Amino acid sequence: MVFLRLFLVFSLFSIAFSFEHLNSHLLPRPLILEYPEKIDTQLKGFEDDELRLRCSSWRFAAETNNLSPWKTIPEECASYVKEYLIGRGYIFDLETVSNEAGAYAKSVELNGDGKDAWVFDIDETLLSNLPYYAEHGYGLEVFDHVEFDKWIEKAVAPALKPSLKLYEEVLGLGFKVIFLTGRSERHRTVTVENLINAGFREWHQLILRTPGDDGKTATIYKSEKRNEMAKEGYRILGNSGDQWSDLLGYSTSVRSFKLPNPMYYIP
Amino acid sequence: MVFLRLFLVFSLFSIAFSFEHLNSHLLPRPLILEYPEKIDTQLKGFEDDELRLRCSSWRFAAETNNLSPWKTIPEECASYVKEYLIGRGYIFDLETVSNEAGAYAKSVELNGDGKDAWVFDIDETLLSNLPYYAEHGYGLEVFDHVEFDKWIEKAVAPALKPSLKLYEEVLGLGFKVIFLTGRSERHRTVTVENLINAGFREWHQLILRTPGDDGKTATIYKSEKRNEMAKEGYRILGNSGDQWSDLLGYSTSVRSFKLPNPMYYIP
Repeated sequence: MVFLRLFLVFSLFSIAFSFEHLNSHLLPRPLILEYPEKIDTQLKGFEDDELRLRCSSWRFAAETNNLSPWKTIPEECASYVKEYLIGRGYIFDLETVSNEAGAYAKSVELNGDGKDAWVFDIDETLLSNLPYYAEHGYGLEVFDHVEFDKWIEKAVAPALKPSLKLYEEVLGLGFKVIFLTGRSERHRTVTVENLINAGFREWHQLILRTPGDDGKTATIYKSEKRNEMAKEGYRILGNSGDQWSDLLGYSTSVRSFKLPNPMYYIP
Repeated sequence: MVFLRLFLVFSLFSIAFSFEHLNSHLLPRPLILEYPEKIDTQLKGFEDDELRLRCSSWRFAAETNNLSPWKTIPEECASYVKEYLIGRGYIFDLETVSNEAGAYAKSVELNGDGKDAWVFDIDETLLSNLPYYAEHGYGLEVFDHVEFDKWIEKAVAPALKPSLKLYEEVLGLGFKVIFLTGRSERHRTVTVENLINAGFREWHQLILRTPGDDGKTATIYKSEKRNEMAKEGYRILGNSGDQWSDLLGYSTSVRSFKLPNPMYYIP
């Protein structure tokens, strides 16, 4: 470990020194050295390699449901999570999940009696609250219901594009689309407005939490609702959600698709 | 995209050129340039950034059980997977899961009647077949039962150190340790020999597949075995496995821990 650190420090010194000579034979040597921004990032990345890997392991553990309930992202991973979300990592992950779900949807033979269902969660599954979380440390701040409700009531959350694509595909294939969200019934109007503005213009059911669901974990609340669907004769063939509590429990879907979300955890 | 490529090519040229001056004022200039290995890897990584992210998305999809059954890793991700496995990514991921499982194990209040159980899978959970897969493209080759059996029969698979640590912790806490593996009963002797040599010297039960289990998916076979444990009065409080088929199905554990494995998939 000590050896590695020494090696890193030495390497950084060597590289930093080498840049003093950067194209020095071609350009007049500036009094104040300016390194190309991209290379500076490389060096920083080089220095932070171990931290990046540790944060990647934390994300792996979060996404595979290995962690105990967590309230905020690890402080030392704040930059890692931000970079993942605003860089290409997050969008690539969303695209991969959407493509896999779409391929599965196409492969399913539908009964065609109007009971073939696909269940979608809403937040971080169809709609993105990234603009809100960008203002709140990308998961570094403890969740604030009051502030988040204000954001929801604006009804301006954009669509997650790869999910919009999947939604259109499953609609086109003839699935009954059911939205099952942890949002409260009192947010029905703004939720409908937001969904429509974001391009989700059609659905069979939009299920929100009623006062009777208060105090239930999302796992229980969503299992109960899926169980009601099953009793009404629906075959839940696909389920998309960014939380394991969207997907696990009972009356689970034939196939479940876990979207990435390193910002928050809902039990 | 074209712009990015041009920028990359230009950056690589600039950086490559700058190394010509590496410490040239300190050392006699060599006739044949030798770049530090670490920096060369950095540059390659820089060039392959998009592919690395795409392969990372594939790994995310594999580890979160989003993929359809897959037989081999994507060809274009061969280097990515190899680098992950022989670099620090894999070991860090194993450590994180082991630490989380250990913290959970310590937090559980045991009944103390000898029925508190922790179930461990064996391959890629306690024992590592990485030496075998290193000779078979790290998951790039289609699984070969005959070759793999020859490897198993050598009984030389090393322990996954973070799992050995967890195993010792749960034993020390008083859990009954049960090994539940997809290996065949005819490999009992070599499996016992291998486990002991790798440091796993004590267990309550070692369950292997009997002829009666032929043709069952791992999910069904392992669910049946967990169900038998439950009927015998065991409370399965923890379950560690590298495949979702170790963890899902019925009679599932109170908490399940998914270890990383980007090399193969068992339904």
